[in-house]
Amino acid sequence: MNFGSDNVAGASRRVLEALVEANQGAASGYGTDALTARVTARLSAIFERDVEVFLVTTGTAANALSLAAMTDPWGAVLCHAEAHVATDECGAPEFFTGGAKLIGLPGLCGKMTPTTVEAALNGGHAPPPHAVVPQALSLTQATEVGTAYTAGEIAEIAGIAHAHGLGVHMDGARFANALLRLDGTAAEITWKAGIDIMSFGATKNGCIGVEAIIVFDRARASHLAERRKRSGHLLSKGRFLAAQLDAYLSDDHWLDLARQANATADRLADGLAARGARIALPVQGNEVFAVLPRPMHDALQAKGAIYYRWAGTSVPPDQAPQGDEVLVRLVTSFATTADEVDLFLAAADHRE
Amino acid sequence: MNFGSDNVAGASRRVLEALVEANQGAASGYGTDALTARVTARLSAIFERDVEVFLVTTGTAANALSLAAMTDPWGAVLCHAEAHVATDECGAPEFFTGGAKLIGLPGLCGKMTPTTVEAALNGGHAPPPHAVVPQALSLTQATEVGTAYTAGEIAEIAGIAHAHGLGVHMDGARFANALLRLDGTAAEITWKAGIDIMSFGATKNGCIGVEAIIVFDRARASHLAERRKRSGHLLSKGRFLAAQLDAYLSDDHWLDLARQANATADRLADGLAARGARIALPVQGNEVFAVLPRPMHDALQAKGAIYYRWAGTSVPPDQAPQGDEVLVRLVTSFATTADEVDLFLAAADHRE
Amino acid sequence: MNFGSDNVAGASRRVLEALVEANQGAASGYGTDALTARVTARLSAIFERDVEVFLVTTGTAANALSLAAMTDPWGAVLCHAEAHVATDECGAPEFFTGGAKLIGLPGLCGKMTPTTVEAALNGGHAPPPHAVVPQALSLTQATEVGTAYTAGEIAEIAGIAHAHGLGVHMDGARFANALLRLDGTAAEITWKAGIDIMSFGATKNGCIGVEAIIVFDRARASHLAERRKRSGHLLSKGRFLAAQLDAYLSDDHWLDLARQANATADRLADGLAARGARIALPVQGNEVFAVLPRPMHDALQAKGAIYYRWAGTSVPPDQAPQGDEVLVRLVTSFATTADEVDLFLAAADHRE
Amino acid sequence: MNFGSDNVAGASRRVLEALVEANQGAASGYGTDALTARVTARLSAIFERDVEVFLVTTGTAANALSLAAMTDPWGAVLCHAEAHVATDECGAPEFFTGGAKLIGLPGLCGKMTPTTVEAALNGGHAPPPHAVVPQALSLTQATEVGTAYTAGEIAEIAGIAHAHGLGVHMDGARFANALLRLDGTAAEITWKAGIDIMSFGATKNGCIGVEAIIVFDRARASHLAERRKRSGHLLSKGRFLAAQLDAYLSDDHWLDLARQANATADRLADGLAARGARIALPVQGNEVFAVLPRPMHDALQAKGAIYYRWAGTSVPPDQAPQGDEVLVRLVTSFATTADEVDLFLAAADHRE
Repeated sequence: MNFGSDNVAGASRRVLEALVEANQGAASGYGTDALTARVTARLSAIFERDVEVFLVTTGTAANALSLAAMTDPWGAVLCHAEAHVATDECGAPEFFTGGAKLIGLPGLCGKMTPTTVEAALNGGHAPPPHAVVPQALSLTQATEVGTAYTAGEIAEIAGIAHAHGLGVHMDGARFANALLRLDGTAAEITWKAGIDIMSFGATKNGCIGVEAIIVFDRARASHLAERRKRSGHLLSKGRFLAAQLDAYLSDDHWLDLARQANATADRLADGLAARGARIALPVQGNEVFAVLPRPMHDALQAKGAIYYRWAGTSVPPDQAPQGDEVLVRLVTSFATTADEVDLFLAAADHRE
Repeated sequence: MNFGSDNVAGASRRVLEALVEANQGAASGYGTDALTARVTARLSAIFERDVEVFLVTTGTAANALSLAAMTDPWGAVLCHAEAHVATDECGAPEFFTGGAKLIGLPGLCGKMTPTTVEAALNGGHAPPPHAVVPQALSLTQATEVGTAYTAGEIAEIAGIAHAHGLGVHMDGARFANALLRLDGTAAEITWKAGIDIMSFGATKNGCIGVEAIIVFDRARASHLAERRKRSGHLLSKGRFLAAQLDAYLSDDHWLDLARQANATADRLADGLAARGARIALPVQGNEVFAVLPRPMHDALQAKGAIYYRWAGTSVPPDQAPQGDEVLVRLVTSFATTADEVDLFLAAADHRE
Repeated sequence: MNFGSDNVAGASRRVLEALVEANQGAASGYGTDALTARVTARLSAIFERDVEVFLVTTGTAANALSLAAMTDPWGAVLCHAEAHVATDECGAPEFFTGGAKLIGLPGLCGKMTPTTVEAALNGGHAPPPHAVVPQALSLTQATEVGTAYTAGEIAEIAGIAHAHGLGVHMDGARFANALLRLDGTAAEITWKAGIDIMSFGATKNGCIGVEAIIVFDRARASHLAERRKRSGHLLSKGRFLAAQLDAYLSDDHWLDLARQANATADRLADGLAARGARIALPVQGNEVFAVLPRPMHDALQAKGAIYYRWAGTSVPPDQAPQGDEVLVRLVTSFATTADEVDLFLAAADHRE
Repeated sequence: MNFGSDNVAGASRRVLEALVEANQGAASGYGTDALTARVTARLSAIFERDVEVFLVTTGTAANALSLAAMTDPWGAVLCHAEAHVATDECGAPEFFTGGAKLIGLPGLCGKMTPTTVEAALNGGHAPPPHAVVPQALSLTQATEVGTAYTAGEIAEIAGIAHAHGLGVHMDGARFANALLRLDGTAAEITWKAGIDIMSFGATKNGCIGVEAIIVFDRARASHLAERRKRSGHLLSKGRFLAAQLDAYLSDDHWLDLARQANATADRLADGLAARGARIALPVQGNEVFAVLPRPMHDALQAKGAIYYRWAGTSVPPDQAPQGDEVLVRLVTSFATTADEVDLFLAAADHRE
């Protein structure tokens, strides 16, 4: 009953098999192998556009490299105040950019809005060179609290950003989970809505450790090859990164994996609601943010269930925990089964 | 009628004379001269403690070097959301620290409070190494909006910061102006209240261009000599920085200069209030934040008066501009005369 | 016939099997899993000392993090002029240290000597803060040109470095290959000879992509946890890094793999020498630096053999190529077979 | 008898008077004042080209900002191995560039040559992104050992640099001294010979503390305004920097100052030679590098003469000190008088 994170799961069987399969003969190093080229082709097909791809092993690297490619040291990045880049990456964006500033915007449901973005861009800042200059905007899909931006929402925010000269980045650590919840294709909720560069996550959704930086607008991506090498993220045996993604992307495997995670998240949310918990935020990916009655929380803890308590301002006030209620985050993964959910729900049945 | 900034003034006559006087014979370079030693002795006397001093030419350098001496690249600095270090230094603290994060706290009257500081330090952050670690707190004296922290306020905030292991920095760009407004000696409102390092401003108050980084707690000041040199802030002919401060600090000249600035600020505030403007924030230094009726603003503009409009959240809501009122900042300096103020006030008399 | 690099090989079968094996159930993330703990125990046993271990995916990351843990931004790192850290990592050490300087020392056979190290440390540098301060020394084992430092050589150089206050790092990208060639245990050629931190390479010698930063002297390793996270090198599914190393280190598998590489390197060198090539440098790892007669080179190229031409000053003058001779680097790996070598040698037989 | 450095002198009387003169009324801050504009016009006239000018207070800042404007973090800067930027600025270029690498080239008389530059650019480097990319070349005029590059020498080196895509920087800390020694105008030995950006020194030659970054080729100068502000080098009361340069540049005052320094250097060199010292390097500025017989050195020391011993590889072998001879550097300045030189020479007369 581990709902602590989707990174506690291992890898999908197909991904592992592909890795073993890739271990044949010699292959040229540093991403110049045939498998890497095939992954680029697959991503170009999925996104309906000729994209440039840089593979790395962590989401932090993908995000920080992407932001550095769009932001000068004296630039600023707009993001949600609780975005992973702002709160959980130990200042990686600041490190990779050479000291740019992240400007965290408030917003319910983990989302920036046109209003908050406009305000940040039009605020009475000192003129350059006194104030830093916003140069990029980063939004998270699905968001840090499991909600999803619609194509329309992205287009509106990205439009404002572009109008002010900013590049637009998507942290897609849980992109597959969000995609399945939304109307629109992968292309429609990314570059067609204004995304210039994205971190295409695969690790949480069944790979061992691989993320793709996908460049839609090359004019906005400065020197990613050098930045990747210089930060130690260019793997010599690159075929083993590519092999994972190749299997992940083939035959809609990535969507199947996300579908399982989403379905078990729904099952979990429905089950908790039926037992008296309050689902505090729309479940638009594979995360459930629930307000548990204290006895339910105690019962789950007593039975060893693993999940995290949550804080922050993304939960609408009318959904926030009252009294001794407990706000928690529950994450499912491709490996979560209906049985596990049911076991958890049984544990949540705390009547004596 | 230039009330745009205290940096539009030149230098005090005594400071200039000292500079000319210092131009005798040879002197050893890079701050190893006798005048620099004398300035250190003067500051030690004024602050009643054996201090370490590093002279630089700008407040931005003094602040950024001070913060870098207390903050790792993966650290964070707490400051007011509208502090100069956060909004007007083009990311200098980020540059000098190697990418630390500034966390801007809200607060009326340009001040952090024990409540906001505690909240920032106790928030539900991810544990290291996921989240950055707050390592320093920087407060501005006088604040960005011309108010002053009392010794008690500083002590309370610094106490919280120290209890969490943070170093405490004071940006004293307008320290003299605040000191004159407060109960307490220079020592009492700095290190005796918990300040570890300060930027002791002199440029705005009558020098040509010199600020002193004063180290009260050497254990918290890492490698300032190297950081200053490496950033290009170690002047070869150091005697000319020291000469300015030597004159500035002798015979209470610095306090006399600030007294003139404060007195003209008071005269300005009183005169504006008498003419129907609203003084939006307590005048506790040499800055006046006033809400002008639109016709008064128009009249002043028509007569060529120079000052800046102001925005931000430091003004209490009940003092904020309404309708077409205009919130402005007016700054006086050591060089401002009562006559200039009266001329300005006459211009504000906008009856036809 | 690919002797271009040891990174063109895949992974050992045992390593891959361990990876598949590790894919069972949930595991806590970010290196807090049981397998990671087991790897630390294994390395402690092999090195006969309680070591601290940080796993990363590339040698560049391991080296740059290690050097950053020992070197301030105003510090310098002594290394051989042709060391990988100096010439092939796109400035990663400079990036991770915040701008420290690498000082490349000349030396035959890819080695620094007590003489060159002493000279670099005793040169007539400007005193601080004018000149940067040497704070670390990095040596490569096996060296960039396939030679190996003896325990005695290391001890002498490390002794000088320590006497001047420097930390000592070993880039052990090909550590196993060198170890097999030397008298002495793993402990004896590392910390017992004065190494404080090492990059323990495994990727080139049969892993998919994993290197261990091994800290022998914790007092010299500043904030590696934060540095690793901040640079994007803390993998969420850490078990998959650990699983590789666990298999690699068990049952002397790592030594068996290196033994194969070394044996085929010897076979290659012997065969080339027998055919009229000149072995330019002692073969003390899995690399052969050979001076080929032009017809031999042409014959090999014609038959599609892959290897790199080499330049640099490590080759002793009396071994350097003359006329149209060609200096080349040939690298074998754990996956190289005697048959492959023989095929290559046959191709080198260029008589018409 | 202080010949330790030209920075032990104070400022020229005219420069000080201009400073006092500039202290009239209000002036807009941060380099937007009329005097700063006038300095730009003066420099444009002197250099016969419409130049962009950024004033700072130290040569280290001017050099580091200039190099950062031309060099990416993954770039490299070619310079002489003993250049000030490489040996005496505590890594400032590395700091300002975000970690670029300085590649020090050997060369007699403190000079790079077409041969060494070509070799550095054509060396067998790994291709990007493995190796850093040379992006700038910095030459010093006069050099660190008091010699001067001719217009032809500069043109040849700059031509090679440009052909490889590098920008060319001149560290002109002692530009005036060199200019007087050379055939050619200020324009002819700078941009007409291929210099893109220069640090135009004034501090050593009679100012209090001001250097001008002069941009000849704006296409090569990235974001100097932001870089200057962010590094704390944008002075608020900019008129006081400009006033110094305005006086310095008017009526050929700068050349007169340098002429005095050069003349006393010649007098010193001639006098020493007449007394048995060996002038080790051509005196092409205001520095004399002399090999003193030990008794002469002892006599000078006994009489309190101040100067520095020198090391390094710029002195041609046939001029290097033998036995107990002592190689020293002697620097004159605008303030050095013939009497001072004669006093020194008398002290050097060490016969009992």
